[in-house]
Parts: sequence; C-alpha cells; structure tokens
Amino acid sequence: MLVVMSHSASPGDVAGVVATIRDMGYEAREIPGKQRVAIGLIGNDGKVDSGRLEALPGVLQVIHVTQPYKQVSREWRPEPTIVQLANGTRIGGPEVVLMAGPCSVESAAQILDIAPALRAAGATVLRGGAFKPRTSPYSFQGLGVEGLELLARARAETGLAIVTEAMESAMVEVVAEYADIIQIGARNMQNYPLLRRAGRTGKPVLIKRGMAATINELLLSAEYVLAEGNDQVILCERGIRGYDEHTRNVLDIAAVPVIHSLSHLPIVVDPSHGTGVRAKVAPMALAAIAAGADGLLIEVHPDPDHALSDGAQSLWPAQFEQLVAQARGVARAVGRPLMAGLTATQQS
Amino acid sequence: MLVVMSHSASPGDVAGVVATIRDMGYEAREIPGKQRVAIGLIGNDGKVDSGRLEALPGVLQVIHVTQPYKQVSREWRPEPTIVQLANGTRIGGPEVVLMAGPCSVESAAQILDIAPALRAAGATVLRGGAFKPRTSPYSFQGLGVEGLELLARARAETGLAIVTEAMESAMVEVVAEYADIIQIGARNMQNYPLLRRAGRTGKPVLIKRGMAATINELLLSAEYVLAEGNDQVILCERGIRGYDEHTRNVLDIAAVPVIHSLSHLPIVVDPSHGTGVRAKVAPMALAAIAAGADGLLIEVHPDPDHALSDGAQSLWPAQFEQLVAQARGVARAVGRPLMAGLTATQQS
Amino acid sequence: MLVVMSHSASPGDVAGVVATIRDMGYEAREIPGKQRVAIGLIGNDGKVDSGRLEALPGVLQVIHVTQPYKQVSREWRPEPTIVQLANGTRIGGPEVVLMAGPCSVESAAQILDIAPALRAAGATVLRGGAFKPRTSPYSFQGLGVEGLELLARARAETGLAIVTEAMESAMVEVVAEYADIIQIGARNMQNYPLLRRAGRTGKPVLIKRGMAATINELLLSAEYVLAEGNDQVILCERGIRGYDEHTRNVLDIAAVPVIHSLSHLPIVVDPSHGTGVRAKVAPMALAAIAAGADGLLIEVHPDPDHALSDGAQSLWPAQFEQLVAQARGVARAVGRPLMAGLTATQQS
Amino acid sequence: MLVVMSHSASPGDVAGVVATIRDMGYEAREIPGKQRVAIGLIGNDGKVDSGRLEALPGVLQVIHVTQPYKQVSREWRPEPTIVQLANGTRIGGPEVVLMAGPCSVESAAQILDIAPALRAAGATVLRGGAFKPRTSPYSFQGLGVEGLELLARARAETGLAIVTEAMESAMVEVVAEYADIIQIGARNMQNYPLLRRAGRTGKPVLIKRGMAATINELLLSAEYVLAEGNDQVILCERGIRGYDEHTRNVLDIAAVPVIHSLSHLPIVVDPSHGTGVRAKVAPMALAAIAAGADGLLIEVHPDPDHALSDGAQSLWPAQFEQLVAQARGVARAVGRPLMAGLTATQQS
Repeated sequence: MLVVMSHSASPGDVAGVVATIRDMGYEAREIPGKQRVAIGLIGNDGKVDSGRLEALPGVLQVIHVTQPYKQVSREWRPEPTIVQLANGTRIGGPEVVLMAGPCSVESAAQILDIAPALRAAGATVLRGGAFKPRTSPYSFQGLGVEGLELLARARAETGLAIVTEAMESAMVEVVAEYADIIQIGARNMQNYPLLRRAGRTGKPVLIKRGMAATINELLLSAEYVLAEGNDQVILCERGIRGYDEHTRNVLDIAAVPVIHSLSHLPIVVDPSHGTGVRAKVAPMALAAIAAGADGLLIEVHPDPDHALSDGAQSLWPAQFEQLVAQARGVARAVGRPLMAGLTATQQS
Repeated sequence: MLVVMSHSASPGDVAGVVATIRDMGYEAREIPGKQRVAIGLIGNDGKVDSGRLEALPGVLQVIHVTQPYKQVSREWRPEPTIVQLANGTRIGGPEVVLMAGPCSVESAAQILDIAPALRAAGATVLRGGAFKPRTSPYSFQGLGVEGLELLARARAETGLAIVTEAMESAMVEVVAEYADIIQIGARNMQNYPLLRRAGRTGKPVLIKRGMAATINELLLSAEYVLAEGNDQVILCERGIRGYDEHTRNVLDIAAVPVIHSLSHLPIVVDPSHGTGVRAKVAPMALAAIAAGADGLLIEVHPDPDHALSDGAQSLWPAQFEQLVAQARGVARAVGRPLMAGLTATQQS
Repeated sequence: MLVVMSHSASPGDVAGVVATIRDMGYEAREIPGKQRVAIGLIGNDGKVDSGRLEALPGVLQVIHVTQPYKQVSREWRPEPTIVQLANGTRIGGPEVVLMAGPCSVESAAQILDIAPALRAAGATVLRGGAFKPRTSPYSFQGLGVEGLELLARARAETGLAIVTEAMESAMVEVVAEYADIIQIGARNMQNYPLLRRAGRTGKPVLIKRGMAATINELLLSAEYVLAEGNDQVILCERGIRGYDEHTRNVLDIAAVPVIHSLSHLPIVVDPSHGTGVRAKVAPMALAAIAAGADGLLIEVHPDPDHALSDGAQSLWPAQFEQLVAQARGVARAVGRPLMAGLTATQQS
Repeated sequence: MLVVMSHSASPGDVAGVVATIRDMGYEAREIPGKQRVAIGLIGNDGKVDSGRLEALPGVLQVIHVTQPYKQVSREWRPEPTIVQLANGTRIGGPEVVLMAGPCSVESAAQILDIAPALRAAGATVLRGGAFKPRTSPYSFQGLGVEGLELLARARAETGLAIVTEAMESAMVEVVAEYADIIQIGARNMQNYPLLRRAGRTGKPVLIKRGMAATINELLLSAEYVLAEGNDQVILCERGIRGYDEHTRNVLDIAAVPVIHSLSHLPIVVDPSHGTGVRAKVAPMALAAIAAGADGLLIEVHPDPDHALSDGAQSLWPAQFEQLVAQARGVARAVGRPLMAGLTATQQS
C-alpha cells in the first residue's frame, strides 16, 4: 500500500503517517520523489483499514498495490516512463530506439570505425563493454577505463549516447562518469548492492534480465533502483536459459507485452545474446519490434570474425543497415516510428 | 547418406545399391518418393567411401546428410516444400496463411457462427477440435465424430479448409475423411504409430512441437511422416515449458528461422497456446510473422468467456479482425504478403 | 468433491445423488469401484452446499478434493496403494522393489542370459522393450511380438515378472497378454486413449513422467487409469528436460516425497534414463532409495558396449550386483528393507 | 594446456616458457601456486606441439586440459582437495560434514539458542546470513556487521565454524574477519569481482550454484578463486530453476557425482533452498548423502514459524536431530562416516 502525500504536506504530516502505520503494526518506508512524497506500507496489506490513513492531514490518496513490487508497477504510475538522454534519445516514448555496437571495446580503431557507421544507419546509442564479465578467468576481460575513454571519444565524434556495463559497486562511479546509461548485466541482475549504487547516481540504468529470472524478479531488481529515488530504468530481455542447441538462449519475446502490462518502465530487447547466432539476429529483432519493444540492443562489429568476444552473434555493419530498413517497416506496421537517427546538429 | 537413384533406375539397380551398402557394413533403407527413389545409408556415415556407391548403375547422386534427420533436411531438398490445400491455400510459399477457429467444436451454432466471420477476416483454414486431449479425464473431451461433421458443414458453407486433431492411430482414418489437414497435438509429437499412420493417409499433417521437444526431435517426428512417403508436413511452434507464471508457455519464436535454415518444411506459429493469455496473442502473432512464420494458428471464439476450453486465450472475432489488419502490415514489411482471403468463387 | 455411497446404496440412491448434483448446476460423474461407488461432482466445488448431498439416502460421506485429480489423491485414499504381482512382488509396500533389464529385447541369447543374473542379484521384475519408441524412424524399433515371447520365456525360466511398453491403444491387448505390468513411456504420458485402454485391462500400469510434465500432470494421467476402475498404477520418475550437457536429463528425486504426500500410488525411479550415463546410475539409484522411492527401474545389459539402444546408460551385470548390495544398506538406513529376491519356490 | 614448472625453476625459466608460448601464437598466463608455478597456454590447444615446451629448462610436465576450466579439473589435480577449518572440520575428505543454522541471524537470543543445539546434534559449521540478498528491497536485509558479531559470539560459545555470505567485493574484508568460510550466494555465482576478491583472502570460499548455471559455469566460477592462488573452495548444489509448483527449485543431485568426476573440489548440497518445503528437506538431504555429497547445508531455526526469512523451509531443531540420525546410517551404507560432532576439547 502506498500513501501518497499532497504537495503541501509538511514533514510533520509525513511523520504522522509513518507513526500511524507503525501503530497499525506495519513497517513504513518513505519513498522520496521529485513530484510527491509517498510512504510505503510494507507487509501483507490485504486487511489494512485504509480509511484511517486517508483521514490523516496531508494525505492525497492511498493506493493498493497488489504486487510484490511497488514503484515499478503500472498501479503506482499508469503512464509510461520515458528515459531521456542528453542527445535527445527518448526510450519508452512512441519511437523505437536503436542501440548498437560491439560486444567489447577492443581498440580506438575498432570503436571509432564502427560508431559513425552505426550513427549513419540510425542508431542513437552506442553499446560497448569496457569491463566484461567473462565465464572464464582466462578470457579477455575488457580494456577497463581505457575502454571508457574510447567510448567517450566515440561519443564526442558522433553524438551517440553511451551504454556500458558496471560490474560492481566500486566501479559504478567511474562508469557513471563516462556513460549515459549504466548497464547491469544479466549475471548481476540480482547484485543488489550494485543496483542500489547505480540507482544513487541518478543516471539511467539498463537492467538485463537474468539467465533464469522470472519477470517479477526482474521488476523487483528494478525496484531496487527506484527505491533509491531513480526512476530512469530501462529493462532488457536478452533470452533465458533453454535446452535447445540451435540457439544460445531462448528469447522470451512475450516478456515485452507482459512487462508493458505490469510496469510503466520501457523494455528493450537484445536479440544478439538472445540467439547467439548472427543469422537469427535480424528475424528476432524484427519480432521484438512487432511485439512492442521500445528499442533494440544489437551487437555490430566492424569485423565479427576477429572479434575478441561474441563474434558469432555480431552483425556486419551492412547487415545492421539492412536490418534497420526492415525494422522501420515493421515499426510503422505496429504504429510506432523508428527513432530518426541523430541530425547534424545533435552531433557534438 | 542418401543414394538418389535416377528416374530410369531399375529395381535391380536399387537392389544392387542395397546389397552394396550392406556389404559395406551399414544398414540400407529404401525411401520411396514420387519423383525419385533413394536409399538411405543408416549408421555413422562419416567414413563411407561414397565413390563405390556413385559408380553403381542407376545412381544419380550421393548426398551426405550430416543431421540425424534425412528427408526433412535442407540438404536433402533445398527448395521450400509447399503444402497445397484443395481450397487454394498454399502453406510454405511466399504468402502468410491464417488458420483460426475455436479450441473445441462445441455446437453447430458456435462453429457455423464463427466460420464466416473468420473467412471474412481473411482466414482460409478453420481450426477446431473434435477430439480433445485434456489433462483431466473429467474435462470436456470434445464432440467426437459429431464435431467432425460440424466442421465439414462449416467448410461446405464457407470454403474454409479444416485442420483438426487425431489423437490415436485408430482415429486417423475417420479424421482423414473429414479433415484437410490432420493435426498431431503437442502431447502426441512423439507418438510414432500415430505419426506413421497419419503419414500413410497422404493428407497434409500439421505437427505441433512437444512441450519440451528440441527442434531436432520435432524434425525427427516429421521424418516419421516423410518416411511413409508423405512430404505434406507443416510444423508448428506452440510454446515450450517455462517457469514464469505470466504466460502459459514460452513461445520460442527463434524456432522459426532455425527451422527454416534446417528444413524445407513450412513452420507456423500458435500464439494462443504459446502465451495462454488473450492480450498477449496479437503481439506474439505479429512477432511470429516478423520472424518469418509461414502462417498462424489462432484461437478465436464467438464468446470466449463461455468457451468450454481455452477461453482465456481465445480472441473475440473483432480482435482477430484487428490483428489481421496489423499482420498485413508486418508481413508486407518483411516482404511477404498475407494470403488474400478466399474469393467468392472459392466458396462452395 | 466426491460423494461416497455406502455399500448398501441402491442404484436408485446413486441416481438420486446424480440428479441432485445436476440440479445444483454441476456435472456428475459416476466413479465405479470395487469397494464402493462414488460420484464425482465436477466443477469448481468451492461453494457447494455439501449438507444437501450428505442428507441424501445411501450417502456415506462427502469428501472435498482440493486438487484437479481426484481418485489418485491422498484425500481420496489415505493408505498407500500396493500393486501386487503374481510372483509375489508388492510395489508400494514397505519393501523396495528392483526392476531391471535391458533397454530393448534383442535376442533370445541376450534376454535369457541376463534374466537369471538379475534374479540372482535380487531383482523380481524384468524390464525390456519389445516395441521401442525411437526418436529416429531409422533406429532399431524393437522385435515386436517376438520380443514379448522372449520376455515370456525369460519369465518362465526365472519367475521374474515382466514390465514392457505398449506404444498405442491397438497394441495394449497383445502387450497385456504377455506383460505383468504395462508400461506407458514418457513420450506417451499424455496419450489419453492409450491410458484409458491400458486401464481397462485391469493389469498394473507403470506410467513414466513426461519430459517436462508437472507432477500434477503425471497424477492426472494416472487419474485416466483410475477413472477406468483400475487402481493398480505405479508412477515412475525418469528425469525431466534440463540444460546441462553432463546428464541426459535432470532426475527430479524430490518428486518422490512430493508424490508420496499428494497421492497413495507407489513411485519408482529410473536412474538410467534419469542420467544417461553409466557411472551416474548407481549414485542416483541410491539417492532415490534414500528419498523414499518404492522401487528402481534400471537398465542392465550383458554387453552394454554392443547394446542396440541406450548402451551408454546400461550397467554391466556385475555393477548391478554391487549396486544392490549398497542399495540394501541405504534402504535399511531409511527403515525400508530391500525386497528379498525370489525364492526357489517362486520360480516356475 | 598447463606447463608445470619444477620447484627449482627460476624466474628466467618461467619467462622463457612464456616467451615460447607467445612465439607459438598463443596467450600465456602465469598461474601462481603455493607448491608450483604453472603457465597456462590459452587458446585452442588441440594442435600445440607440446614437445617444444617440454624441452625447455625448468619444465616439470605439460598437462593437456580438455576443459574450459583448468585448475579446478581432475586432470590438473587427481586427488580430492580437502578444505580444512580451524575447528578440525575437513570438507572433501572421507567424512560427511554438517553445516546448519538459520537463514538469517535475527538476534542474539536466536543464534545463541540454536548454535549449541546444532552442535549437540553433530553439526560442526554454523550457517547464518548477516547480509541477505533479498528479491525485494522492502524485505529484511539482515543485521549486517552486528550479525557477524553475533555469529562470532556463537562460535566462541560452541566451537562451531562460521559460514556466512559476502554480497559484494567491498564487504569481503569485513566478512573474512569474522567468517571461517566466505559464502558466495547463488545470485552472485557469476559476480567475478566478488569471486576474485574472496579468492584473495586465502579463506575457504563456498560457491553456490546459480539459478540456472551449468556445471561448467559453476566450475569456471570456482576457477576465478583458484586463479587467485586459493584452492580452498567448496561447491554447493542448491537447486536449479524448475517449472513445478510443488518445490521451490529442482535439486539436481546428479551434480554431485558429475562434479566429483570433473573436479577435485568438494561438493555439498543445500536441500533447504533446493526444495523450499520443510517436509522435503530430510528426504533430499539423505538422497544427497547417498549420491556422495561431501556435506549438507541445512536451514534450522529455533522457531521456523516466526523466522524473518525462509521459515517455510527451515527445520525445527528436533527434526534436524532426527535427520542426523538417519544421515548417519545412509552415510555408513555408502561407505562414508558422518563427521563426529565437535568434542569437548574442540570447544573454545
């Protein structure tokens, strides 16, 4: 249950609600917000007499939230949340957004070569890993801060916004310094200290669904970010563990309409990890848009055959260009324009 | 390995190849076909000296088949198989085909009411269960032969072709008498006597993917039908067992491009069973088309709230009509027209 | 809800209960039984006024059944069902039963060689497939009726009871002629015509859990047999589809205590299919007994390296003997003796 | 491939091997160890001419490692690793070890009440969460450092060793100060910075298998710890994501013999999280021992009905005592004694 305070509510009014909730035997949790303060009543609220709370001074309304997650739910906020980036990209609005780039930042040549091509094709966000969580300790682990600097150079040259992963709390600050969107990888979806820390930066956070996470678990991970007062969260479906050898994961595209019905947060799809196979990326990217995805996250590499990671699922730049053309048609068919690429003036 | 005989090969030539294969220590299996006879060499054929076979009289070519399935593979037949129905519907060609109808045939009123509406909306195949495999022995089990007769009446009135399920070998004959396409349900995907028996009818057979079947297992089930000399097989992705409560199954849309790369057989998608939730059927239907599906199999009921089975996942007729409109756009965007509905002359 | 009639209830009493249930707006289904007749009230029985039914003549008691399955539930019958075979084997009683044998019956030499060895090691039931459901149509499909005759010879020579699979309704009669227990394979767990037909033989039926079947689905499949008036059902856990390459399936041993709490039917475990790897069969067999399994179903072959099917998961006879010795200790540790093997007088 | 250097190898010898590997076109990675230095040759080593490396000065032997993991493999070290704790507990030796305690440390009363009871029953390691990763940000998150202090008090009073979770790198130091074993939770199995940091403490590390982790992924996570020069690693099977509602997870007991065949590291089983249901904990604990587990990790709470977390799967102390008695018998039956509890002199 959420007790929403009016604009004019005083700190004393808030304290009064908190005290009343505790007196009723429940835990109270203040949820600060830019527009309004709310107080969450934690515990099984099925039998709570909300009348007593509604009558208190400063209370605007009392919202019953039937889900384990609160602030991420459509009940809490019916209108979609739009994540707004400095370069004008809006994720969660009517337009479908394209995020693309290599799995890992490998060199200046690589990233500064691919970025303008992606921009020209219509992408507005550049993806690329500087810190890479790798299953084996002996695999390439990313360029680290040098990779972040290369991403920043690519942004300066193209105007593309940057999404890149932070792998632990201690890294969040440095990643936030460079990134427009802090990515939380699938392996870290339930790394709660990391989610909290990312939330506190106030920067947009993109959370990838864990390997076998339920949708409720994904939403509860997002709730950790919102509980820090940061609602700039993008969810990402990237495939769940399956048993068939022909694809790396099972891309659960139904998660797109499911999440749209449960939550106001935008949901994008990563068909590269979702399939693990280059030839399947385009069909699944189109499927995601047809199902209502707010954007795509796609691996593109200037030379996939020599990529240091995930080459087998990376598109060639020309394939990405073709995909964008088809995606434009599919988006239009479901009533959503593909976001126009950056204009000349958006380039720094 | 497949040894393909020339048109002019004599029975003696065939016998010669069989004898040679056995002499080489492998099992030989004759695969009769309308166009050509082939002899499959069964066993690990990695080291077979194909030169010895190629030199035999009557041998046209020797094809190495690297998969456990043979005749369903693209290696065996590169061009797509098109399943052709009497009412002009072609499944597997450029056009996307719509099959729709109620889960179960419940009454004359129900099926004769919905069929013209589906036809008007653009469907060319009517689905409806006369024999229903139900998890509980106490649930409605279908109208049986009476249901088949009602389907035939609906066909007579609308020109729609009929797809309906046969649940056991003993039922195949009667189902084949009425149906244009014999459906093998997900629970029976590995009911091999049933597959063989359906294959022997020569009628088109639609095989639904089993609850946790791999794609190879689905293709091998189809191989049972082709091994009977019947290549009129349609595969159907209808969702695999998942762990999330928000959908009934996980619709594995990536199976569409995977199957297209492995096999020449058409693949259609059933988003009704694939999601189990009415509001998710349309987005997933569109996603399936975007990914390249050759058709859709959709549950539509004149009054879903009172359906005897699967009401929660059945569309209202008006919803189906809307879906078809959007599907048309998505199909066009990926370069495939939606099949135009039946014309007046196609109606009986 | 089940309305249980007293012994002395007349057909008129039964008809009266049926009429009353229908008058209340529910479906009534007579469930014949050797001890008592019951009438199932089908539909959501949450709000039924059972008082009205309890007051009718001939009614002994009204049982609320909260599960979708009825007669297989512990609510319906609290005491365990014991399946009794002609050779004295009792499955579901205190003793743990050993069923063993090759995957397929391959030849007289094979089956007549292994049977006495299994008997000597303590098995009382011989398994062996005469009809084999094989994923590929080109694999060995079993010896058919010849295989059944070989099993019968092995029984005549050793006194071992026979469990063997029927793959379709049409086969049930011939299998029932030879078998002591009719096996329904995992691929056919939801082949309802087959389950009904097997139920009608009155013979014990062993139902293997389907590849991705829930426990409720397994129980509902058993319900099909009990609904035919046959309660001689043995359930079998044989592993569910998993994603790890090191085992063929995930043996869900927790199904044993779960089924014991939900149902009165015995549950045995097949660690051969459950793991697919010879070296893992013994540890998992012991684990199953420790968890309370009523028996084991184990593949043993006189020469696994040359088995026509499932050789990789078949034990050598000496390995089976060692396993039995350890199994005896584990069974004792959980308070259940291993069934002593057949005595001389039990041999025909 | 691993090039193992002799004790007397000089830094120059090591540099020579590294240079040679690079000259051959592969990456070289030094793997420091207490007993010996090794150099890993990274890359597909199938065609490496090992003779050239064997001939270099200081090289003791060259080991072909066919798995993606190296130092955790049985190929690298054939004999089992035994993790040795200060209170005499040895994990991975012949004796089966019992670790038990509440899900969360809740209060001094709770932990100081349960610890002596667990010790009396035969446990030698006390589990209890001070930092709790909870799916919801609004759930109880643990007592933090206060919880660690309470665990230390319990250790001081009973002699039990302490296993407790560290949730992020920044926490490792403080957890290591109090814990005998640092636990890495299932949600953090692929939190590589955390694994590295835990590895560097030199303390034993217990790694729980992730929700849908393959066994190879679990072993590669352990490899991160060993790559830091710390081989004191205990693996823990705690159930994988399943689809059946009757248990919280599917306890994959076959992981025990699989891991024993692949790795020298000890593997323990957590049947509490593995089932999520109190009544199923004991059967699965016994099953784990029968399958060869090196120990158990079990939730026991003095008053499960009022536990702040995981009450439904926690045993009552008396149930734990009964379980230990049965476990002793099962362990003996498979030739492994249960570790005798701590003696008076082992108590501090």
